[in-house]
Amino acid sequence: MSERWVYLFDEADGANRDLLGGKGAGLAEMTAAGLPVPPGFIITTDACRSYTEKGLEFPESMWEQALEAMAGVEKLTGKTFGGAENPLLVSVRSGAKASMPGMMDTILNLGLNDESTEGLAKATGDAQFAWQARVRFIQMFGDIVFGVPALRLSEIAEAARKQQNGARPAVEESIALVDRLQSVIYGYAHQRVPEDPAQQLELAISAVFNSWSNKRAVDYRKVAGIPEDLGTGVTVQAMVFGNTGAQSGTGVAFTRDPGSGVPGIFGEYLPDAQGEDVVAGIRTPHPISMMQDDMPDAYSELIEIADRLEKHYRDMQDMEFTVENGRFWMLQTRTGKRTGRAAVRIAVDLVADGLITVEEALGRVDGSQIEQLLHPVVAPGSTAPVLATGLPASPGAAAGVVVLDSEEAVALSEQGKPVILVRHETSPDDFSGMVASQAIVTARGGVTSHAAVVARGIGKCCVVGCSDLMIDETSQVIQANGIQVAAGEWVTVDGTTGQILVGEVETIEPELDDAYYSLMQWADEKRRLRVRANADTPVDAAKARELGAEGIGLCRTEHMFFAGDRIETVRQMIMAPNNVARAEALAKLEPHQVQDFIGIFEAMDGFPVTIRLLDPPLHEFLPRHDDTALQITDLKLQLSRAENLQRVDAMLGEIHELEAMLHQVSRLTEQNPMLGHRGVRLGIAYPQITEMQSRAIFTAAARCAERGITVLPEIMIPLVAFSPEFDHQAAIVRQVGEEVLGQHGINIDYLVGTMIELPRAALTAHEIAENADFFSFGTNDLTQSTCGLSRDDAPRFLGEYVREGVIKADPFQTIDVDGVGQLVRLGTERGRSAKPDLKVGVCGEHGGDPASIRFFDSLGLHYVSCSPYRVPVARLAAARASLESKQ
Amino acid sequence: MSERWVYLFDEADGANRDLLGGKGAGLAEMTAAGLPVPPGFIITTDACRSYTEKGLEFPESMWEQALEAMAGVEKLTGKTFGGAENPLLVSVRSGAKASMPGMMDTILNLGLNDESTEGLAKATGDAQFAWQARVRFIQMFGDIVFGVPALRLSEIAEAARKQQNGARPAVEESIALVDRLQSVIYGYAHQRVPEDPAQQLELAISAVFNSWSNKRAVDYRKVAGIPEDLGTGVTVQAMVFGNTGAQSGTGVAFTRDPGSGVPGIFGEYLPDAQGEDVVAGIRTPHPISMMQDDMPDAYSELIEIADRLEKHYRDMQDMEFTVENGRFWMLQTRTGKRTGRAAVRIAVDLVADGLITVEEALGRVDGSQIEQLLHPVVAPGSTAPVLATGLPASPGAAAGVVVLDSEEAVALSEQGKPVILVRHETSPDDFSGMVASQAIVTARGGVTSHAAVVARGIGKCCVVGCSDLMIDETSQVIQANGIQVAAGEWVTVDGTTGQILVGEVETIEPELDDAYYSLMQWADEKRRLRVRANADTPVDAAKARELGAEGIGLCRTEHMFFAGDRIETVRQMIMAPNNVARAEALAKLEPHQVQDFIGIFEAMDGFPVTIRLLDPPLHEFLPRHDDTALQITDLKLQLSRAENLQRVDAMLGEIHELEAMLHQVSRLTEQNPMLGHRGVRLGIAYPQITEMQSRAIFTAAARCAERGITVLPEIMIPLVAFSPEFDHQAAIVRQVGEEVLGQHGINIDYLVGTMIELPRAALTAHEIAENADFFSFGTNDLTQSTCGLSRDDAPRFLGEYVREGVIKADPFQTIDVDGVGQLVRLGTERGRSAKPDLKVGVCGEHGGDPASIRFFDSLGLHYVSCSPYRVPVARLAAARASLESKQ
Repeated sequence: MSERWVYLFDEADGANRDLLGGKGAGLAEMTAAGLPVPPGFIITTDACRSYTEKGLEFPESMWEQALEAMAGVEKLTGKTFGGAENPLLVSVRSGAKASMPGMMDTILNLGLNDESTEGLAKATGDAQFAWQARVRFIQMFGDIVFGVPALRLSEIAEAARKQQNGARPAVEESIALVDRLQSVIYGYAHQRVPEDPAQQLELAISAVFNSWSNKRAVDYRKVAGIPEDLGTGVTVQAMVFGNTGAQSGTGVAFTRDPGSGVPGIFGEYLPDAQGEDVVAGIRTPHPISMMQDDMPDAYSELIEIADRLEKHYRDMQDMEFTVENGRFWMLQTRTGKRTGRAAVRIAVDLVADGLITVEEALGRVDGSQIEQLLHPVVAPGSTAPVLATGLPASPGAAAGVVVLDSEEAVALSEQGKPVILVRHETSPDDFSGMVASQAIVTARGGVTSHAAVVARGIGKCCVVGCSDLMIDETSQVIQANGIQVAAGEWVTVDGTTGQILVGEVETIEPELDDAYYSLMQWADEKRRLRVRANADTPVDAAKARELGAEGIGLCRTEHMFFAGDRIETVRQMIMAPNNVARAEALAKLEPHQVQDFIGIFEAMDGFPVTIRLLDPPLHEFLPRHDDTALQITDLKLQLSRAENLQRVDAMLGEIHELEAMLHQVSRLTEQNPMLGHRGVRLGIAYPQITEMQSRAIFTAAARCAERGITVLPEIMIPLVAFSPEFDHQAAIVRQVGEEVLGQHGINIDYLVGTMIELPRAALTAHEIAENADFFSFGTNDLTQSTCGLSRDDAPRFLGEYVREGVIKADPFQTIDVDGVGQLVRLGTERGRSAKPDLKVGVCGEHGGDPASIRFFDSLGLHYVSCSPYRVPVARLAAARASLESKQ
Repeated sequence: MSERWVYLFDEADGANRDLLGGKGAGLAEMTAAGLPVPPGFIITTDACRSYTEKGLEFPESMWEQALEAMAGVEKLTGKTFGGAENPLLVSVRSGAKASMPGMMDTILNLGLNDESTEGLAKATGDAQFAWQARVRFIQMFGDIVFGVPALRLSEIAEAARKQQNGARPAVEESIALVDRLQSVIYGYAHQRVPEDPAQQLELAISAVFNSWSNKRAVDYRKVAGIPEDLGTGVTVQAMVFGNTGAQSGTGVAFTRDPGSGVPGIFGEYLPDAQGEDVVAGIRTPHPISMMQDDMPDAYSELIEIADRLEKHYRDMQDMEFTVENGRFWMLQTRTGKRTGRAAVRIAVDLVADGLITVEEALGRVDGSQIEQLLHPVVAPGSTAPVLATGLPASPGAAAGVVVLDSEEAVALSEQGKPVILVRHETSPDDFSGMVASQAIVTARGGVTSHAAVVARGIGKCCVVGCSDLMIDETSQVIQANGIQVAAGEWVTVDGTTGQILVGEVETIEPELDDAYYSLMQWADEKRRLRVRANADTPVDAAKARELGAEGIGLCRTEHMFFAGDRIETVRQMIMAPNNVARAEALAKLEPHQVQDFIGIFEAMDGFPVTIRLLDPPLHEFLPRHDDTALQITDLKLQLSRAENLQRVDAMLGEIHELEAMLHQVSRLTEQNPMLGHRGVRLGIAYPQITEMQSRAIFTAAARCAERGITVLPEIMIPLVAFSPEFDHQAAIVRQVGEEVLGQHGINIDYLVGTMIELPRAALTAHEIAENADFFSFGTNDLTQSTCGLSRDDAPRFLGEYVREGVIKADPFQTIDVDGVGQLVRLGTERGRSAKPDLKVGVCGEHGGDPASIRFFDSLGLHYVSCSPYRVPVARLAAARASLESKQ
């Protein structure tokens, strides 16, 4: 006996989505539930796979089974496929397990030929309708099966329609149009839409199968991570017509509002219309509520069915229906897409309704949906032109005037102007400019570039890597996509889509509702992994607490070095000709650092605060080489034109000073600063910096403790590769700790640990753990060094890599489990082998990525730490990870 | 019973160097052998350790044992320690297992006080001699035990000596000098040299013990890798005097010539002198042969003893002896230090003499000694001032005129001038300049910087990281150490010591002798590991074969891109606006590459050649950003002064072109090029480059094979992190291979493999090995990424790290077994788990480092590859590793 490739709706098992595809499974399930579904059959995904493997041939007996099923449908409907009397027409649709744009969608009215069109005319008593149906069929078939450009066909149809001035076309006109369409199709494809209904069906089924392998579909699967070997099913279903008069209609309805999640039917319908009319946008649909008056019976049937479907599927449904001469037909149901706000509301409501468990509710909301709740969004319906599209690096939306320079951003912001900082890329120098801006846009860099990391940290909307954007600093203009925007003009940045819109577009502020708090509380109850935030200032720390962070996992002290006018003092320290001058500059910085830490400890009362000692190479604190060189060149140019002697002297003095700075910048400049003199290496070269920072931390801790605040400092040494590096610095920290705490006569529990961000540190974790109290995996840097990828430079080709399938995902967004993940696992195991109670966390950007969190949870780490605005995402992801691991 | 801390020479076991120290063990052994050794005793290294641990106190009963031993010496000599008649005087010396500068060395004539000086005067009948001995003792004791600056004491003694106009000082003068020295000592130390001989001895022993822990000794042990807990022994030995007349004397002799290895006694002696006189250089010693006439008996005794000692120790000995009134005394013997040439000659001769085995001979010569044989050296005895000292990066010695620019180097070299290229650092741009130069000096960079790697590859002498060197390109002057050298003036570079000498200093050319060839043949017979060379040109390849390379392990194709005027074509390829223009430029490069490969295959007939596809980021082929920017600035400055309109137009055109180049340079510039768009990533972005290079390789291989040459090409994909990267490129290479070989109708065995130079590649080696034929560990880059250390930038602090003991050795010189080594081991194991016959080699600089070779041999790798000039070193090291692993 040959394999079974075809199932009638009432024979198929609706639970088997793998075999039937999503659409077919839904129809089978509704049929089984006794809902009014036009009869039909499904050709399985197995058949598609076999077809593809066999070099585009139907598997044995599939076609015979399909014809047999068609006979079944004829029987159920009492109609004849392509018959001259009461003809059976069918729709042919694709349906993979996962919904997939780019694949062939739908051919309607299949089965129409000259004979059956007349049959339809007789059966409905409406010849105009029948020939219009024929025209639509020919158009769709020509486009989808023969690949004739849809535009070419619709132009012809449109031209005919125009001549009719909106009136229903006469039969003769439709007949003439069918002929014209067939000739155009012949011109392109060297064949006409066949008359034989069986041949129509055969070609349509092949077209569905072929569309599984077309470029757009393949590309989409790559991006969406859908396996290549799923295959698509084919659904062949008897046509019903919503366009047969006032007691007919078609509509789309959700069981709850997909925008807000508010319960109750939500949708729209069109009387006397086919679904395609709604899509084509020729007529404006009515709100669903109007259906109650227009056709009350059908409406109550819809309400009843909606309720049954939601209970059956235990989730909000997105339904398509048609009413044909008063008779209600369900054409499709599927789980409805929804906004983040609605997702949360629906999940929480369904728990209240007793339909799903708390665990299921947590599984229903994903990280990106939670994230939507926390940031402003661009109001829907904007028609503003898109200037450029980049990588969405930090969510939110903001409008403001374009500024190309950080100092200008600060100045305008102080005047109360909202500004958008647009740069080629940012450096630590831009920090105050970024703080002063509503959003940040860069032409270069990826989602873990400086701009992206800082923006997420301070909760600013940010788009990076807008490679089309030309920034001309001289003429103070940016341009892309044929549009110019001058500095001072408005743009709106959408950090969720990565779009830069021209002009000031309305944005909607976020508001956290009860449903959000319920869901988050459940997440906190279910998760094992602790969630901390990366926060560098008291303001960030407070925000992090508000969003549920249980401590700070990474406080980057270098950001404090940039705040206000401290950078001048930092530069004095770097330019210091000797240790005495260096100590003097450091002494000036210490009180500032003490104040910073006091603010952070206050905000984190009772929670641990991990403070990382100075990490970046010193040249990051100096002006840029090129900027300085340019200044010198400018001055020299001016000098060559200057006539006033006093002015010449002044300029010469200025040039001299700048040249000294340039010399120091050159001296400190490194070919590969990421692998250069930074992190613990600085602390070893300049132990005074470590001493100053330790003193500031312990002084702040002691002062807070004296006021009754519970402080739990965890001091972290960055970039350790060799255990003696750690030992060297830890000894200084502990010694300063004993001194300062001794002076205050106070006892504070503190930890001294390290970042594990180099392969060597992970490989020798057992040695480092001998003396370290905790590890924090710096997975950004660990990814860089393990894969040899610079996060600043790699975006130029990583996108291509993902598109080409060389790698599955950007390893800076989702941890590379097979490579970098091995080192996280090994570092954790080896560290714990030396010290079983070693505290282990993660403070890279991966700490806020759900897929990565699942991996970290599986390793049994203690906590993840991420930007404050990703803390709720991480809390949810940690709960989902816990639940998954229990299954 | 308390522990034994003290042994008389004739009681001690001379084989126990750990306990007795090297000096003590030698004396004990000679005593046991019945050689004439002045009696004495040894205080053990255990006693030193106990003394150090106990807070500088003698261990229990040690002092009593010492006094008892002294009584034994009194008995053996028939003299009394500090006695008024026939007094026993002793020398006190330190002696650790390893010879160690920086520790206390010797106090002579201990036991002299007012009374015993008179006793000595009586016993010898020479009061002048006795009081001179006393002066010498006071001076040494004051300096060594009390820490009075030696210079201060010798100034006083010198002043007295001058007054005597070279005559022997009268007794009264010596007595007065003793008084003056004692007052000066008292002024510094608040104590005088004691009269009591026992107290003298006690203080001297403490001083030896203390000197074990002084800073210079501790620093030396760190550098030399000598364990801290060895401790030093103390040797106390009866004095004999070579300065008691014409039948007395003292000398130093080697059993063979330590410079050439020629057999026969070699050394010098001074009649009527003490050893210290030789050292002080006051008198010029005579050749040892003159001793035969002066004191024939003593001479034959020396010859006989030398022969016995060499047979006993089975190695060339360095002996100290004294003749006292015709009686011959051995004071010390030890294995003699020797030049590389002598080491080889001696080892081979000793095998011929039947004294040692071939295996032992291989163990007697180390890599640096072999290396000396292969390069010119600075002729000994140069007094040229040292301009600066850097890191010795590539051995050899060369003199030439200073040139600060690569083009200038080429130009002058074409005029026949020997040039020394001096740069801040080099880039691939400097390649032809380096080839044209005799030696290369850089102010920055470490021993694996570009300059160092290239210089070793082409066998040029090179010194890098001369951080004191100021290079002023504007005034064309270099300076350091207070000396200025203008471009065009002569310097001599010593690549073995890292010194830059002012002026033209004589150098000696290398010459390989029979002993060298014998030793290398033995090495080849004993080693398991194959040795290949890194060679990029036919000339290098020929040199590599000459030096014994068994193939090429790394042929860097990018160097071919810089040769001659090809760089212009390469730039056209990079600046190409589209694929057509790019293909055109590549087509121009292909014939050149074919010719290069033909030359290399010819030189390597029968041996494998590993060719690495293009690796460096493209911007390395463009002019430097700053240079171009500077050119533009210069032009603009000229423009502002220009008056001729035609000239203005020309300049504007030039500026425009340069600005286009600058734009491309900026676009391609990366923040961390080491982690950027290079290696396999280039090949994926521009598959045309991979195709062109593959076509060139296979075309060359086919043409050679047609001529009967055996070609074994191994094509290597660089910088793979993810296995699909390798698969992508390997598919192109194999496809081109089949095409080209098919066209030629020829079959050639070739391999396609990859560099393992990123941690991720090692971690996922099993995935990569599925499809790869071989692995070659690029340990330079693997070290960089594993440790997060840039080899260009790290030298700024790595030196400090080694000095501070944070790391044991520069991981770019000797493989970091504990970190990077783990990945080499793991990558090998995993690769072989997927493909048991996977060929695995190493092509980093570590392939020429003996300690690293030992590690690679222990992993069972197939081969190492290194610069041609290190091939003999690697052959020897591989043999030694094999022999060690068998033990």
